[in-house]
Amino acid sequence: MKIGIVGLGLIGGSLAKAIKKNTDHSCFALDIDRAAIAGAVAQEAIDGELTTDTLHTCDIVMVCLHPAQTIRFILDNKANFKKGGIVIDSCGVKTSIVEAVEAPLKEEGVVFIGCHPMAGREFSGFAYSVDNLFERASFIMTPSDDTAAKTVREISQLAYEIGFAKVVTSTTEEHDRIIAFTSQLAHVVSSAYVKSPSLLKQAGFSAGSFKDLTRVAKLNENMWTELFLMNKQPLVDELDCIIARLTEYRDAINAGDADGLRELLKAGRELKELSNNQQ
Amino acid sequence: MKIGIVGLGLIGGSLAKAIKKNTDHSCFALDIDRAAIAGAVAQEAIDGELTTDTLHTCDIVMVCLHPAQTIRFILDNKANFKKGGIVIDSCGVKTSIVEAVEAPLKEEGVVFIGCHPMAGREFSGFAYSVDNLFERASFIMTPSDDTAAKTVREISQLAYEIGFAKVVTSTTEEHDRIIAFTSQLAHVVSSAYVKSPSLLKQAGFSAGSFKDLTRVAKLNENMWTELFLMNKQPLVDELDCIIARLTEYRDAINAGDADGLRELLKAGRELKELSNNQQ
Repeated sequence: MKIGIVGLGLIGGSLAKAIKKNTDHSCFALDIDRAAIAGAVAQEAIDGELTTDTLHTCDIVMVCLHPAQTIRFILDNKANFKKGGIVIDSCGVKTSIVEAVEAPLKEEGVVFIGCHPMAGREFSGFAYSVDNLFERASFIMTPSDDTAAKTVREISQLAYEIGFAKVVTSTTEEHDRIIAFTSQLAHVVSSAYVKSPSLLKQAGFSAGSFKDLTRVAKLNENMWTELFLMNKQPLVDELDCIIARLTEYRDAINAGDADGLRELLKAGRELKELSNNQQ
Repeated sequence: MKIGIVGLGLIGGSLAKAIKKNTDHSCFALDIDRAAIAGAVAQEAIDGELTTDTLHTCDIVMVCLHPAQTIRFILDNKANFKKGGIVIDSCGVKTSIVEAVEAPLKEEGVVFIGCHPMAGREFSGFAYSVDNLFERASFIMTPSDDTAAKTVREISQLAYEIGFAKVVTSTTEEHDRIIAFTSQLAHVVSSAYVKSPSLLKQAGFSAGSFKDLTRVAKLNENMWTELFLMNKQPLVDELDCIIARLTEYRDAINAGDADGLRELLKAGRELKELSNNQQ
């Protein structure tokens, strides 16, 4: 099979490297950054360059751009994909993407299925891409009501070949609601966490918990602004929830209420253990 | 030198193992849990058992109990320590501990210096203790105005011998204010984070950021209730700060304010990078 990758950033680059390492498919890539293409060819992460004129030669095209760019690229090139071929994306929100591109592609005889490879690092760009980024990761697919089972099977099989640990299917709405909690909220909380006047005094006074809580504050603000605003209500709901919970702890501490505080902490520990058991 | 350890939990047990592995000092331990003592003897983590009657034979006693127990043990045994010997603790708060025990020990001719080995795991007890827990950790000491330089030097040297990467001195107030941010706030935020209705749907939808943000929700609620209430005002201040910051992100997202949101995220990223450079 011939696979096209649009955008050789951290995700596109890592997908290319994993495809070349773990599968027999050929892999071609399109990127406006000449250095990324040259580097990928030199590292044999791709078999060659792809252009909008040769997009139609790919059986599957993986669009690995930021959300707004993903929509723009797909709509601008909707006539350039292979008829009967499959296009997938890799964005961290699904409803906005699928609503924008699925129908226009369908009119062109192209199948679209929203996808979200659940992996990342606090670095961006091809230079940080690695062939094992997805080894322990989930690959989420959000087929629509009329997506053919054959398409779901084909992409699912490809994800396992690439090396994902697990493939999950979901509606776009369920995906966006859960991701607001597991990923988006984590990035907002980390970003807010570092804004204490105590931050620049922490050297020598911190251990694992500080590092863990603040790791993803080092984010790409352009991409995450798009993702957050495309998933406004679920994320606002999660933020309202954690602000209300934090206020409960704050009030118990302020009141010196040992029993109440212990109960709040115990409930959190038990929920964490329950969630660990569901992995 | 003969070192006594009171309380063979995660910290006491790991200190014992590191002392036996990395130094030539002898090490004896006191614990109400017979199994911990028997295990430590069998693993050669200690040279033998310590009792309140033999406490006075130790040059340095490290009290590794929860905060309230630490104060109680030291006060109950203030006459049992070696005259001219040194007693240290290992609690995550310092002002309350030092205020409670320093003067009574001084009256008995015993030197106390508040200490905080900055390491931990999300597990408790001797069974989880390891000889390399402190390898990359800071050892914080909070000498009082009239602590002799000789004492600071002696404990500092011991900490390096044990294997700590860095020894830091601080006032008790500065320690408590910074720890409220680097450690206590992290535990409260993690505990609050898991209390979303989305929690039990997260399997298959989470990656590193969720794991990092929630790791320390698995805490010992008895110990942390004591620590939080002994450091009430600094922790309430940090909680007020993060709640106010989170509300700014929440409002920007709710208003669809892309420019404002991007600025908030950019400021967080830049602060995180600045703080990384200070490590």
